[in-house]
Amino acid sequence: MQFSKDDLGAMPSRYRAHFVNSLSGYKSANLVGTTDGKGNHNLAIVSSVVHLGAHPPLVAMIMRPDVVERHTLSNIRATGWYTINQVNSGFWQAAHQTSAKYAVHESEFDAVGLEPQFIGECPAPFVSQSLLKYSVKLVAEQVIEQNGTLILIGAIEQGEVSDNALCSDGHIDLNSIDTVAITGLDGYHVGSRLGRLSYAQPHVWPSALDD
Amino acid sequence: MQFSKDDLGAMPSRYRAHFVNSLSGYKSANLVGTTDGKGNHNLAIVSSVVHLGAHPPLVAMIMRPDVVERHTLSNIRATGWYTINQVNSGFWQAAHQTSAKYAVHESEFDAVGLEPQFIGECPAPFVSQSLLKYSVKLVAEQVIEQNGTLILIGAIEQGEVSDNALCSDGHIDLNSIDTVAITGLDGYHVGSRLGRLSYAQPHVWPSALDD
Repeated sequence: MQFSKDDLGAMPSRYRAHFVNSLSGYKSANLVGTTDGKGNHNLAIVSSVVHLGAHPPLVAMIMRPDVVERHTLSNIRATGWYTINQVNSGFWQAAHQTSAKYAVHESEFDAVGLEPQFIGECPAPFVSQSLLKYSVKLVAEQVIEQNGTLILIGAIEQGEVSDNALCSDGHIDLNSIDTVAITGLDGYHVGSRLGRLSYAQPHVWPSALDD
Repeated sequence: MQFSKDDLGAMPSRYRAHFVNSLSGYKSANLVGTTDGKGNHNLAIVSSVVHLGAHPPLVAMIMRPDVVERHTLSNIRATGWYTINQVNSGFWQAAHQTSAKYAVHESEFDAVGLEPQFIGECPAPFVSQSLLKYSVKLVAEQVIEQNGTLILIGAIEQGEVSDNALCSDGHIDLNSIDTVAITGLDGYHVGSRLGRLSYAQPHVWPSALDD
């Protein structure tokens, strides 16, 4: 089927949300851990974490200030810290359940059965069950004026990854730690590997990399 | 293993690129089609396309102005248009190969064996082989001052998706069209479905959705 901007505008709101959220392709599945500094821990599933740069190591995250993520956002602003924890197939339903609108005094950790963990000086909780996770310091916020969303820019501080997932060239094998990907609003997947390819050069077809 | 900011800083450049690019999780695999308006078509694989909002339908893309994507960027600035085409398992190697540094006069379409397609008023080429694609009009550019990357904000204009991929609630089944996801710099995967989950509500465990 073909669709136009007018077709998208005419869709019922929830239908359009499913449809447009599917257009970008697979999305990362991460749990963002925060604290309000008064003993209340928060956990929120986020599908908008994106790589921003390796040197310095920066990660971006898009947030809507008006939805459930507002506790996450206010905690990040209050403390300057958050953790990013890759979701894996061992707790994908629990990760999804963090998107329910729990009250401030209810910890999503307790509500969904995940365990907080603390590493280094970061006051925000990590997810013990995650096999790839790191703490992030908020560096800047930018507003997307077109729809009021925010881009949070964060510096990667300290982290932990399963030894067996690390390849000799620095690539991390996300299949080996069963990292989950999201489609649309509520589709969950693990990856099925096609392969890694050599650095592309003109007029030379890429070859498969072993790792 | 644990890693600190200092450990990341001490990694050899290419090792660090592989490592940090793996931290965000699965990334979308899209080919971005552009034209310079003088008959030269360009195609570039991009792993940074992210959903920005459904109403209005907006999509963001992070670009580094100093790398191979510069032809893509200058074409987008010149014409105001680009196309986003989901990569599928039928042409993932060809998609990867578009990242080679071809000269301006060489079309990546010819070089990698993909076919241009034109839909509506968009002057930029679509990828005929892609089963989910849409044209985008550049709305704004924002600079990330921390590392000089750009966020392009685009309005979704017109597109095409396989009929069989569309679910009754608007969700698009990316498994059915073999959409590809990227890990790190060069890892390619298709999705293996865990399931869809119902809208999360406090104190109610999510149930599986059929589609």
